[in-house]
Amino acid sequence: MLSIDKQDDTYLYRQVIDLIGENIDTGTLRPGDRLPSLRKMSQSAGVSIPTVRQAYIELERQRRIESRPQSGFYVRHRAINPIVSPAPSSDGQPVCLNCRPLMERVYEGINNPNLVPLGIANPCMAKPAAKNLHRSMKRIMSRAEERSLGYASTLGEPSLRRQIAYHYLDTAGVQAQPDHIAITNGGQEALLIALSAVASTGDVIAVETPTYHGMLELIDGLGMLAVEVETCPEEGVVLDELRRTLEAYPVKACMFSTTLSNPLGVTMPERDRRRLVQILEEFDTVLIEDDVYGDLRFDGYRPIPAQFLGDHARIITCGSFSKTAAPGYRVGWAYSPHFIEDIRRLKRAFSCSSGFLQQLTLADFLASGDYARHLKMLRPELQRNAERMAALIGEHFPSETRTSKPVGGSVLWLELPENVNAEELFDDAIAAGISVAPGQIFSPANRYDNFVRLSFGHPWSDKTDDAVRWLGRRVSELAKA
Amino acid sequence: MLSIDKQDDTYLYRQVIDLIGENIDTGTLRPGDRLPSLRKMSQSAGVSIPTVRQAYIELERQRRIESRPQSGFYVRHRAINPIVSPAPSSDGQPVCLNCRPLMERVYEGINNPNLVPLGIANPCMAKPAAKNLHRSMKRIMSRAEERSLGYASTLGEPSLRRQIAYHYLDTAGVQAQPDHIAITNGGQEALLIALSAVASTGDVIAVETPTYHGMLELIDGLGMLAVEVETCPEEGVVLDELRRTLEAYPVKACMFSTTLSNPLGVTMPERDRRRLVQILEEFDTVLIEDDVYGDLRFDGYRPIPAQFLGDHARIITCGSFSKTAAPGYRVGWAYSPHFIEDIRRLKRAFSCSSGFLQQLTLADFLASGDYARHLKMLRPELQRNAERMAALIGEHFPSETRTSKPVGGSVLWLELPENVNAEELFDDAIAAGISVAPGQIFSPANRYDNFVRLSFGHPWSDKTDDAVRWLGRRVSELAKA
Repeated sequence: MLSIDKQDDTYLYRQVIDLIGENIDTGTLRPGDRLPSLRKMSQSAGVSIPTVRQAYIELERQRRIESRPQSGFYVRHRAINPIVSPAPSSDGQPVCLNCRPLMERVYEGINNPNLVPLGIANPCMAKPAAKNLHRSMKRIMSRAEERSLGYASTLGEPSLRRQIAYHYLDTAGVQAQPDHIAITNGGQEALLIALSAVASTGDVIAVETPTYHGMLELIDGLGMLAVEVETCPEEGVVLDELRRTLEAYPVKACMFSTTLSNPLGVTMPERDRRRLVQILEEFDTVLIEDDVYGDLRFDGYRPIPAQFLGDHARIITCGSFSKTAAPGYRVGWAYSPHFIEDIRRLKRAFSCSSGFLQQLTLADFLASGDYARHLKMLRPELQRNAERMAALIGEHFPSETRTSKPVGGSVLWLELPENVNAEELFDDAIAAGISVAPGQIFSPANRYDNFVRLSFGHPWSDKTDDAVRWLGRRVSELAKA
Repeated sequence: MLSIDKQDDTYLYRQVIDLIGENIDTGTLRPGDRLPSLRKMSQSAGVSIPTVRQAYIELERQRRIESRPQSGFYVRHRAINPIVSPAPSSDGQPVCLNCRPLMERVYEGINNPNLVPLGIANPCMAKPAAKNLHRSMKRIMSRAEERSLGYASTLGEPSLRRQIAYHYLDTAGVQAQPDHIAITNGGQEALLIALSAVASTGDVIAVETPTYHGMLELIDGLGMLAVEVETCPEEGVVLDELRRTLEAYPVKACMFSTTLSNPLGVTMPERDRRRLVQILEEFDTVLIEDDVYGDLRFDGYRPIPAQFLGDHARIITCGSFSKTAAPGYRVGWAYSPHFIEDIRRLKRAFSCSSGFLQQLTLADFLASGDYARHLKMLRPELQRNAERMAALIGEHFPSETRTSKPVGGSVLWLELPENVNAEELFDDAIAAGISVAPGQIFSPANRYDNFVRLSFGHPWSDKTDDAVRWLGRRVSELAKA
């Protein structure tokens, strides 16, 4: 244990440098953490303020810490990885899902509460709003005691639909009709209903590559085929590739995530969204827009869903509170003026209605302003976690490792050295008490053999540090084998 | 207003008879209500006990009240309707659903909280267990504060699945494995997943006639065809008819309600269940068994699901807490040792998992014994409501009206005079502030033009009385028109 020893020959400022350095090396101070102020450090170390300043300036010169104007000194994110490669162009054939057994094992990992949860995308659990949500729920329980046990209406509680419409207006400046919103059992059921409304068994559905595994399981579950469209890690779907795909195959619908795609974390620029809508209108193809991460950009900017850009009516936008507030409430929605009648009919046929008490609770949570406040606290927490994880990966993974640069959400997408098999890493990680999401499940054709998705959407702890370090070591070993 | 007048020439006991009779006629005392005890009546009317006894005996002789041993005197259910006719043999062609627009309007009625709710089957709301459920939920919220916001596992909370398995053992004496139970978003999602696991677009599904409209919308929503199998109002599905249907068509699955079918309220005898299972095994046809009313027989007897009778593995049993405890919780389940892997995969693909807080709450509610106690109070309440409604129908509907004789659940199925169109009655009722379920929606071929389903699953009130009386008058008018 280091401490300042005034009898020591070493300059005092050097001892301060060693003290801070040691704290960084052992992980007590993590990348992104704020260092104690000059005054505070001077008091606790028993040295003068100029001595501390001298030490901090030297640490900054060494690029171990950085100063931020009017804020103080912060531990620097040391290693910056190169960004992941653009998704390789697919061979273009629509295919069935090809990784059912692996998917099963991934979910066993996700469902096991004893593992370090790097396998599931669950952003809001980084800073759960439990207290405020419970307060809203208790309020509803006493206000609507017996009524809250009953059925919600098919489309869902009107006050919640009004709040969702208001939220669109407030954050993206767009106008959504509450009557065109159908509340669903989470975003996944919104995708199910959207897809069932526009396509049938045997139809071809276009997806981004890599794409959210839940979309692939859904397409598979409905007996449809998936065709992958190339993406680039800065701007998402490559539109010229999309055009080629639409020319080559009878694509019934595209299922794209326009904001903070999963796993890449990329947001399609507005100009591209507009072009996307034009292309789909031209081909008369439906867009199912997965917008469940729309509220979770670190910078708080809320991109406008493609739904509201242009004149193409055949768009269904799917949202959810699962990523932003309460996964277990199972409250999402599908929004589509054009398809709302079909959506209502299918919602009723598939599950009657969604949980009523949770809908009333969320309506209260939004109306009170708690939701907006919660997002304001959640985003910087996620950003801190993202930076910590990126820094740890830079430090502990082989140098060839490339990572995505998410601008929000809760996952990093890693391209590992070419000879590392993510399924093997997954198995080893499970045995070591860590769940991860291997690249194979993000493509219907198992294309991402040497990719892995890591989640930072949980309260950061020493276990997280240890888990990422362990993964780095294991990847290095596998790379050398 | 009548009261006892001792100056009056009329015998005092005659005055007591008139007083009680007037109270029955105006509905202050309803069929099934207990009369004041001899002592109480003697005190309140200011006459002797023998006088009251003489009056009660005369009322009993007039068959207006009845004595029940060790309990007292009760208002008698006056009119007993003939039972509904057996469902007519269908012309046998599998068909698509043919009443989408009417179904829409029925649900508008169901979703309108300002109408007298005779249109929705919602038994537990006759005596909601709000206090105890809320107590369980608050307990969970403090015990698992942040965890309760998170995702449940795909199959659902293990403690709830154990409680469901225990409940099967405790009530029906059968052994169910918790790991073969998948928690779903209510019984409707259980039916969706079951049907998706065993059949695809274009397949033929056999249903009882009349059958639950939600099954028909589901079959329609998945692009399948329904073929109706004749039922009899005492024993349900006519098995010889079923055999003929299976011989005539490539039926992929049968969706039958073995206990308290909806709308007939009939329970298939155990001997028939066993034969049903044998026939389906012989034809290698799947049974999707809708068992959501299994706990709601008035006599408390819990019939054994067909799942547990015989050796046919290809059975999926669907249960729910929506009819017995909390519709708005959206917690049901699918049970099938044979199909559990497919069920798990589809549950994940369709909606990830079900509401976690409600699952934890229900597990607590069952484990505490509250659920069993709640059922014990709910059943007699439902029976009383059933008797009241049957009596009112006998009194106010045309004498040709026939009604089902449900042994549980919350609905009566009425066969109206032949020239009465239920859709017309439905429209008139909505305009008068009453929602009902017209017969047309219980058959894919709109066969039940002159039938209507009335629900008694809500707290009985003067509004219920008035609504049933109004319906009786309106049916009489329509019959004469």
